[in-house]
Amino acid sequence: MGVTSDRVEYVCRYGGNGTTTSGVNVSIAAEVTMEIHSVCLPPKESTFQKLKHRLSEIFFPDDPLYRFKDQTWCKKLVLGLQFLFPILQWGSHYDLNLFKSDVVSGLTIASLAIPQGISYAQLANLPPIIGLYSSFVPPLMYSLLGSSRHLAVGPVSIASLVMGTMLSEKVSPVQHPTLYLKLAFTATFFAGLFQASLGFLRLGLVIDFLSKATLVGFMAGAAIIVSLQQLKGLLGIVHFTTKMQLIPVLTSVFHHTKESMKKPKLFWISAAAPLTSVILSTLLVFLIKSKVHGISIIGHLQKGLNPTSTNMLYFNGQYLALAIKTGIVTGILSLTEGIAVGRTFASLKNYQVDGNKEMMAIGLMNMASSCTSCYVTTGSFSRSAVNYNAGAQTAVSNIVLAGTVLVTLLFLMPLFYYTPNVILAAIIITAVIGLIDYKAAYKLWNVDKLDFLACICSFFGVLFISVPLGLGIAVGVSVFKILLHVTRPNTLVLGNIPATQIYQSLNRYKEASRVPSFLILAIESPIYFANSTYLQERLLRWVQEEEERIKANHESTLKCIIIDMTSVTAIDTSGIDMVCELKKMLEKRSLVLVLVNPVGSVMEKMHRSNILGTNSLFLTVGEAVADISASWKPQP
Amino acid sequence: MGVTSDRVEYVCRYGGNGTTTSGVNVSIAAEVTMEIHSVCLPPKESTFQKLKHRLSEIFFPDDPLYRFKDQTWCKKLVLGLQFLFPILQWGSHYDLNLFKSDVVSGLTIASLAIPQGISYAQLANLPPIIGLYSSFVPPLMYSLLGSSRHLAVGPVSIASLVMGTMLSEKVSPVQHPTLYLKLAFTATFFAGLFQASLGFLRLGLVIDFLSKATLVGFMAGAAIIVSLQQLKGLLGIVHFTTKMQLIPVLTSVFHHTKESMKKPKLFWISAAAPLTSVILSTLLVFLIKSKVHGISIIGHLQKGLNPTSTNMLYFNGQYLALAIKTGIVTGILSLTEGIAVGRTFASLKNYQVDGNKEMMAIGLMNMASSCTSCYVTTGSFSRSAVNYNAGAQTAVSNIVLAGTVLVTLLFLMPLFYYTPNVILAAIIITAVIGLIDYKAAYKLWNVDKLDFLACICSFFGVLFISVPLGLGIAVGVSVFKILLHVTRPNTLVLGNIPATQIYQSLNRYKEASRVPSFLILAIESPIYFANSTYLQERLLRWVQEEEERIKANHESTLKCIIIDMTSVTAIDTSGIDMVCELKKMLEKRSLVLVLVNPVGSVMEKMHRSNILGTNSLFLTVGEAVADISASWKPQP
Repeated sequence: MGVTSDRVEYVCRYGGNGTTTSGVNVSIAAEVTMEIHSVCLPPKESTFQKLKHRLSEIFFPDDPLYRFKDQTWCKKLVLGLQFLFPILQWGSHYDLNLFKSDVVSGLTIASLAIPQGISYAQLANLPPIIGLYSSFVPPLMYSLLGSSRHLAVGPVSIASLVMGTMLSEKVSPVQHPTLYLKLAFTATFFAGLFQASLGFLRLGLVIDFLSKATLVGFMAGAAIIVSLQQLKGLLGIVHFTTKMQLIPVLTSVFHHTKESMKKPKLFWISAAAPLTSVILSTLLVFLIKSKVHGISIIGHLQKGLNPTSTNMLYFNGQYLALAIKTGIVTGILSLTEGIAVGRTFASLKNYQVDGNKEMMAIGLMNMASSCTSCYVTTGSFSRSAVNYNAGAQTAVSNIVLAGTVLVTLLFLMPLFYYTPNVILAAIIITAVIGLIDYKAAYKLWNVDKLDFLACICSFFGVLFISVPLGLGIAVGVSVFKILLHVTRPNTLVLGNIPATQIYQSLNRYKEASRVPSFLILAIESPIYFANSTYLQERLLRWVQEEEERIKANHESTLKCIIIDMTSVTAIDTSGIDMVCELKKMLEKRSLVLVLVNPVGSVMEKMHRSNILGTNSLFLTVGEAVADISASWKPQP
Repeated sequence: MGVTSDRVEYVCRYGGNGTTTSGVNVSIAAEVTMEIHSVCLPPKESTFQKLKHRLSEIFFPDDPLYRFKDQTWCKKLVLGLQFLFPILQWGSHYDLNLFKSDVVSGLTIASLAIPQGISYAQLANLPPIIGLYSSFVPPLMYSLLGSSRHLAVGPVSIASLVMGTMLSEKVSPVQHPTLYLKLAFTATFFAGLFQASLGFLRLGLVIDFLSKATLVGFMAGAAIIVSLQQLKGLLGIVHFTTKMQLIPVLTSVFHHTKESMKKPKLFWISAAAPLTSVILSTLLVFLIKSKVHGISIIGHLQKGLNPTSTNMLYFNGQYLALAIKTGIVTGILSLTEGIAVGRTFASLKNYQVDGNKEMMAIGLMNMASSCTSCYVTTGSFSRSAVNYNAGAQTAVSNIVLAGTVLVTLLFLMPLFYYTPNVILAAIIITAVIGLIDYKAAYKLWNVDKLDFLACICSFFGVLFISVPLGLGIAVGVSVFKILLHVTRPNTLVLGNIPATQIYQSLNRYKEASRVPSFLILAIESPIYFANSTYLQERLLRWVQEEEERIKANHESTLKCIIIDMTSVTAIDTSGIDMVCELKKMLEKRSLVLVLVNPVGSVMEKMHRSNILGTNSLFLTVGEAVADISASWKPQP
């Protein structure tokens, strides 16, 4: 093996010219017509360099300091401020045209945001006014900090629902409204803290573990829970006065289901639907209030801006743990929605959204909101879609939204006095029903059964167990899927495609044919402790089966096993022991083991543990076959 | 994309001849000199077939029913019995020569087994006699059921230690000896049950998750704990009578450290060391008993065979959970040692040991032992090594061992009356110190830092927290390592090695050179929800960097991104969405995205979700480059 490792190092040191003039290959290279290329080690790196490189790949894949490279210090300062407050970036060249479209889109989302805000607050068992507060401060904050141009910020159904369910399990919003409110604000604060620190610690990869499959199932489950909750109220009121209430409900339902069909052009119509139905029903109730009684309405909402709620934050006592837990769950969920939505629209307009930066923005936004009587907010999908389709250009649309809400808060609150709660229930139901994406679920089933399983798990988990546990199970299934793929990897028998140097799976490519007295195997996974034993057994079984096949067909005896390591993307010590073991056992059967094209890290480890025998390493299967069969020829 | 999928299916259905005459490639294939091979779908399989195939790969990688294929029913019966009782297989052609070597090796391991049995029983806080019982029944059982020829069965240090520590945490062996004994037998029963069911359910893969790295750290930690425990006793006695006791201790220590050096030829010498030192010290104590007092000795051991202990099994009451937990932990540990040892010696003599079969054998053995006053036993490493080096040929050496222990139990027990406990402590310490494999730890550090981390975790976890928790942490680290590899995979830029069709990493192969107006990337991992976002960002960053490099060097503009999918061994729905997304974003930059050589499952999923654009799929990078650059040539 000395020879090989020498050869390898030699080739590396001097940049590896095709036909190496040192080591074992020369004699053969002289005989065979085709030249043999040697396998290189990756360039030498110290442990520290490796660690540094690895960490930068883990935490800074997007290379955030990239733009700071070779700049003057004042330029760096400007860039730094622009990094913190993206508004400074686009604010400078903001003009009237942009402003026009931003105003239009801002007003459009406002018409959706006000009723949604009130409804979602109810969904979280919070007073309606909190919903409006939460549509005022957060958008302003985000327009300063956020890097997405189309994200419309505000309360969202999932986070509201989760907060509502998780908190009301322990504390009744009816019996202890103040404590409940305190917990809600505290949870919001911790959600923000959690999100901001995730972003600050560059742990964006955490939310990557909530796969789309998981979210599809989760949303469907959550949607069903909340619909049922709201339906109670809906039927309760229907029991009173069927006719008059059904009309607006049905109209709004109708409109909204159209919304959930996602016809972009119709967005701004359907966006207006909530507001119209609210106005319609409010008028109805107002007109008939003298005749019919017992219709539950919102009632008095006090005018004025967000009061500060710093005194409401609850940092000690028995419910702190609950608040933190709720904060983390709602935080991670709203983060996932916000970032996913941001990325979606960014990709449509072909600009980048920095995940970790967004996390910090949303996190700081929530921390600030928690001090101004707001609860958890993030970029809402439906609202951002409306925003985008109404032609929003920059985050100014969020400022316009905030402005509109401000006016409402200051002057229009009395108008909501007669708004019947039933209409809000209708709005909520139709909104969340849009979250049930059975098409996506079907696609999952169609494309990837295990993804579907994860989806189903989170669906039933959320529906029948609890929100965090349901999500936990779903994530567990997704992780298990990864582990299973590693524990039981594919192994293929390769054959040569005639008149080419291409070697492909015999089972897949009918034109590929076996090479006499060679068995060419490919391993389709890293070799780890978790699969080394399996792989050893499996490979030996391939050899055994091949030998029997040969005996049966009276073909030329098996002499050499070639393992194509191209897809073996990593190896650990158990894996290396396995290769040694395999080599020994094959030698006992007087078979040669040859490895082809190991990737850099694998090559390095094999080299460092000296398991590379002489002439047991080639760059391509073709060269291995040519070289070895040449070496079998009787010497002249 | 209809075209592609048609072409793909066509190629599959008709076995795909090199130049397909349908679909899009024809026109190009006409122009370019080299022929273009199409990518195939894997052969069609129903979901059920897939599931069946997958499950058989997961649970029956070794194809256990293989030998039953096309046999007469009576032959099948014989084979079945031979499968259950391997002794029927080799028993028929067993002869005198085999018997001779088995007798020699049997006697040799007996001389090691008797003192070890007594010592290890003490290590598990059990009466010494239990250790002897455990060296009698289990070997007999194993010789009937086991498929390894060199495994020497008996109590082992790790399992004894773990049982001792876990049980004595809750129940004091001094205050409640009977209860403790009951729990020990019950734990043994559950260990057996657990092992047997693992084997029966073909869950061999469970023990694969205890990587070698984990075990190295674990053994070292365990060894230190037990040495300290025993050292107390050792020093306590030394305080009494220094001189006389130190001699045998030191000799045995000396011998044993020689054993732990693992010089095979010296094994049978060092194997005799425990017995000699026991005899020596016993004689010493016997001679001086009148003069010196206060030397703690074994004392009276009652003669006779294993009494049945079925009445001692403890199936209800507060400690049942403890017994089950202890059973599972000791079970999995002894299983790991047993199977590892079995495989090691099988590979040396080039025969197969069926992991799941072995699990059943060891499991049944332990279940039976628990009814005959034995505690957990398995194939011990040191003893099997002695057995192998003493020339054992079959499991008969276990029978001889059992016979010798039988004689001891019936007649020689009084001889152990004066055996001082200190010598047992010495034997234990020297045995466990052999378990500290610092060389292996150094190799881990040298080859794989993360493996070393797992090793260190289990070491300190076991040392400072607790045995199961320590193991849990270590397994967690190992699993985290796998996940990390998937979450942050390598991406490479490939270049062409001149005058070949070989494309390799530019960073690794100095002779490789970029292909003008192409960017050739390789992804070295499956594309999963856990890495799809990262990969998207990373690939786009590669493109961006390449474009800047080109601008800086005034090279020909970038036109086409080729992604080599060879190492992408799996994809899920998030991954597929990512590829679509990427395609869109590149098209926005007027760049073409081409995929090369996706593996079967990936190809299938991409095909099923119709994301394959026309002419965006090639079998090799070389063909992709040739075909596309040809299509750029001005048409005549």
